[in-house]
Amino acid sequence: MTAAGPIRWPEGKQSAAAFTFDVDAESAVLWNAPGNADRMSVMSHQAYGPLVGVPRLLRMLDHHQIRSTFFVPGYTAHRYPGIVRDIARAGHEIAHHGYLHEQPSAVDLAGQIDNLDRGLDALAEVVGVRPVGYRAPMWDLSWETPALLAARGFLYDSSLMDADVPYELSITPGSAESIVEIPIQWALDDWEQYCFLPDISGSGLIETPAKARELWTSEFEGLHDEGGCWVLTNHPFLSGRPGRARQLGELMAEVKATPGVWVASLEEIAQHTRGLGLAPRSIVRPEI
Amino acid sequence: MTAAGPIRWPEGKQSAAAFTFDVDAESAVLWNAPGNADRMSVMSHQAYGPLVGVPRLLRMLDHHQIRSTFFVPGYTAHRYPGIVRDIARAGHEIAHHGYLHEQPSAVDLAGQIDNLDRGLDALAEVVGVRPVGYRAPMWDLSWETPALLAARGFLYDSSLMDADVPYELSITPGSAESIVEIPIQWALDDWEQYCFLPDISGSGLIETPAKARELWTSEFEGLHDEGGCWVLTNHPFLSGRPGRARQLGELMAEVKATPGVWVASLEEIAQHTRGLGLAPRSIVRPEI
Amino acid sequence: MTAAGPIRWPEGKQSAAAFTFDVDAESAVLWNAPGNADRMSVMSHQAYGPLVGVPRLLRMLDHHQIRSTFFVPGYTAHRYPGIVRDIARAGHEIAHHGYLHEQPSAVDLAGQIDNLDRGLDALAEVVGVRPVGYRAPMWDLSWETPALLAARGFLYDSSLMDADVPYELSITPGSAESIVEIPIQWALDDWEQYCFLPDISGSGLIETPAKARELWTSEFEGLHDEGGCWVLTNHPFLSGRPGRARQLGELMAEVKATPGVWVASLEEIAQHTRGLGLAPRSIVRPEI
Amino acid sequence: MTAAGPIRWPEGKQSAAAFTFDVDAESAVLWNAPGNADRMSVMSHQAYGPLVGVPRLLRMLDHHQIRSTFFVPGYTAHRYPGIVRDIARAGHEIAHHGYLHEQPSAVDLAGQIDNLDRGLDALAEVVGVRPVGYRAPMWDLSWETPALLAARGFLYDSSLMDADVPYELSITPGSAESIVEIPIQWALDDWEQYCFLPDISGSGLIETPAKARELWTSEFEGLHDEGGCWVLTNHPFLSGRPGRARQLGELMAEVKATPGVWVASLEEIAQHTRGLGLAPRSIVRPEI
Repeated sequence: MTAAGPIRWPEGKQSAAAFTFDVDAESAVLWNAPGNADRMSVMSHQAYGPLVGVPRLLRMLDHHQIRSTFFVPGYTAHRYPGIVRDIARAGHEIAHHGYLHEQPSAVDLAGQIDNLDRGLDALAEVVGVRPVGYRAPMWDLSWETPALLAARGFLYDSSLMDADVPYELSITPGSAESIVEIPIQWALDDWEQYCFLPDISGSGLIETPAKARELWTSEFEGLHDEGGCWVLTNHPFLSGRPGRARQLGELMAEVKATPGVWVASLEEIAQHTRGLGLAPRSIVRPEI
Repeated sequence: MTAAGPIRWPEGKQSAAAFTFDVDAESAVLWNAPGNADRMSVMSHQAYGPLVGVPRLLRMLDHHQIRSTFFVPGYTAHRYPGIVRDIARAGHEIAHHGYLHEQPSAVDLAGQIDNLDRGLDALAEVVGVRPVGYRAPMWDLSWETPALLAARGFLYDSSLMDADVPYELSITPGSAESIVEIPIQWALDDWEQYCFLPDISGSGLIETPAKARELWTSEFEGLHDEGGCWVLTNHPFLSGRPGRARQLGELMAEVKATPGVWVASLEEIAQHTRGLGLAPRSIVRPEI
Repeated sequence: MTAAGPIRWPEGKQSAAAFTFDVDAESAVLWNAPGNADRMSVMSHQAYGPLVGVPRLLRMLDHHQIRSTFFVPGYTAHRYPGIVRDIARAGHEIAHHGYLHEQPSAVDLAGQIDNLDRGLDALAEVVGVRPVGYRAPMWDLSWETPALLAARGFLYDSSLMDADVPYELSITPGSAESIVEIPIQWALDDWEQYCFLPDISGSGLIETPAKARELWTSEFEGLHDEGGCWVLTNHPFLSGRPGRARQLGELMAEVKATPGVWVASLEEIAQHTRGLGLAPRSIVRPEI
Repeated sequence: MTAAGPIRWPEGKQSAAAFTFDVDAESAVLWNAPGNADRMSVMSHQAYGPLVGVPRLLRMLDHHQIRSTFFVPGYTAHRYPGIVRDIARAGHEIAHHGYLHEQPSAVDLAGQIDNLDRGLDALAEVVGVRPVGYRAPMWDLSWETPALLAARGFLYDSSLMDADVPYELSITPGSAESIVEIPIQWALDDWEQYCFLPDISGSGLIETPAKARELWTSEFEGLHDEGGCWVLTNHPFLSGRPGRARQLGELMAEVKATPGVWVASLEEIAQHTRGLGLAPRSIVRPEI
């Protein structure tokens, strides 16, 4: 196996940066645990995302003139159609995040297909959008997903962690057909810093917004030096809270103000990558 | 579903802030785990709350001239009647927190009713109080609770997490009857920062008081900017310890000194909210 | 139930402070999990305490002229007799900590008696000491322990958490017979800050020595203001490491230099408390 | 049992320091959990180590002129032969880390022998190296390992935690035959600070690089004062990320610039230790 990159960025930029949001809402705690629907407080914790977090984040993105990517499970689109339409109307990218936040590697092939298609149908029906991007819930891509995405015309996925830059990913090892992969990483996610739902998620650790920002800034500076692609993932039910949103807003200002950084949506980053005409990389499933 | 707020605060204030205390004592570790009563050290850890924490916190609240809300499980009232009466005599609000700290969503309807009524009986018997406020133990409200509270004349609940401001909550979707909901959140709780009881609760993480305060201050500043309602929840068995109480006292001074903040008990906040004549919001249970 | 204290300290001192050490070594990970003996690395992690940590801590205590209390399980005395004798020879108090670090509340009465007596025999045999103090392993005292200690002539226990000051504890509710109790707390323990043994203990959290010291200092300052008794508990296999020992040494210097603090062993604190002629407090087991 | 050390360092140096790397890649999450191979994202998280982390770390080590030790499971050598050869070509030591990252204490004797020999075969085949050093995966040495290593001509092991300095370890208690042991510790490992793989490893805690560095620096300073041997362990899939690598690079500069520190590979440290002609230490398995 060979490593990806480095790649050239548009207009002589040194690195790229994207602020992305996973609008999981209730879906993230209902898939494989439907009994959580009985817990009204838990449901309200998740509902904060679309109801309060998303409008606040849209105002912030507008203020900082950033085009962002929102990964929206189909279930969220059905439950909060007005809010999801607001995201699209504000000019942001709507991308695919499963129907009920299903982890592909835990579902058989027929189930994976069904989840993809139900998600597509929901986004078409609610927002009239055919997404070009996909992110596996829990960043838990299956080996079958790349080919399923290519067959449905997706341009890119954003769920893998083996590079600092986007690359062309062969849909199966050795195949000339590929999708663009825009890598992410656990340290650039707000879940680990902020999420606590007793008996459901989290160790109880809840960090300060300043600590989370310090972590994300340190990796931003590192990736910028290396010519990489910094992709931050926030959840509106977590980072939409006022104290966290303030720090995130300051981080947006800092990233925008850093010379040589191309701040873009994942769709723009994927299109740029596709335009580079890179040879596809193969990732081979380990055999033991 | 639509979002709550914004709302107007009294006397031209910009935001509201409440210091609240859950006097769980032993009940929080006995419900569903009665065997913990065999552990004398564990019991003593919980007893610190009423025995030492509450008197210290009452002195602090008096010093800072803050009227607070104490959520008192019926079991605590029966075990520590003198201390619970001291809270009431100091002019603070006594509110309902179950009988033995039972999580409503984990109990059937008959059990929920029984827990509510036993809690009411205990507070009536010990302090002669008919509470107007309720908080679900573990902030784990059931979908049945709002109607049960309304039927018992409660004015408000404080267990949901889907807004930055109080609102009128329909007791069932679409109903014109409502209770006031005063939202809370996990980041404004001392349990995640401080609690460790081996085999019972906590990952082992014990944070410094300075870190906890930084977290709470960051959300206070964020909610104040947004015109929201900051509700801090402390447990006397945790935040009544001297080092933590000092930081909490400094936070009280800071919040009181911030121009435009209305520092009040939850009862006062609920009465103000009721007076606004808001249309009730419905929260619909997710169907999968 | 009524609260303890406040109490008067010797020579007009304002508060008391004790540096205590639990020399658990292997016992803490062998009791109830004998299979851990198969893991040579795990055993070596625990052995660091007596082999390296204790000599370093003894040098530090000598440098700062502090008399300390070492809680030594009988198993540790049998496995490391020379080191345990060195502790005694340096003038420190040797106290009882079970035989194989057994948690009293998890053992039946006959077992508790056996563990107490085996621990006494080991300390008598190895160091020629009849301890006056006891600390329950994992601070997990049983309701039977106080009477068992009194029957064996112990002066004090140090395992409960319901006060800021020492007190006389009735050996059973209402009894005029009592032992002195010197309370401790989880935040004044190094285990939560430092311990990680995969599959055995800890969440993986390993804090910096500066963070641990900040936590301990904040509670020291708080308890000093309140006239309380600050009891720090360190484990030589954790806090005997050089980086941690340096911070602990600086904390020793700070505590010694604080005017009005009586730095003493637990034995001295217990004797002082006994001399006050306090009425015994009863702690009643919760009934549900 | 008696403690190790102190020892004399070469050329009048005061202490020793080693930067070591465990190139676990996929093996660390596949052993005993082969189903993880189905999770493409998880595999990509591990692949980051050899693909991106190792080349970056090699550039850093070259820049700081540090010779390091890389522990390479046989499976990693087979899957990434070019990268493992690059490590060797850069002049670093290649050492043994099992075949599929098997924990010796969890495997029977025949299995342990097989894992050692398969690891040797893979390193011989891929890099043409006969390693002189061994580190047990998860630092989980078995009591049988020392003799197995000696029988295969290994000079040293680096998996135990009971000393601040290297020593000669009897291959069985009382034996005159020994291997050199170079101790490590959990606080000098990046896994606890950075690793999170849902359902696989970690509590969710992800620390900032600045916090990890503060922890490692505090122990470096402590061990330097004590004349000890500071052995830092990093995993390229974690510390190879740009933000973390920057802090690690600054730490390398700091350690190199500290007067009196001998920065060396573990092989050099083991050879120096062997040259001291120390009497072997025996570690005796605890009996209960």
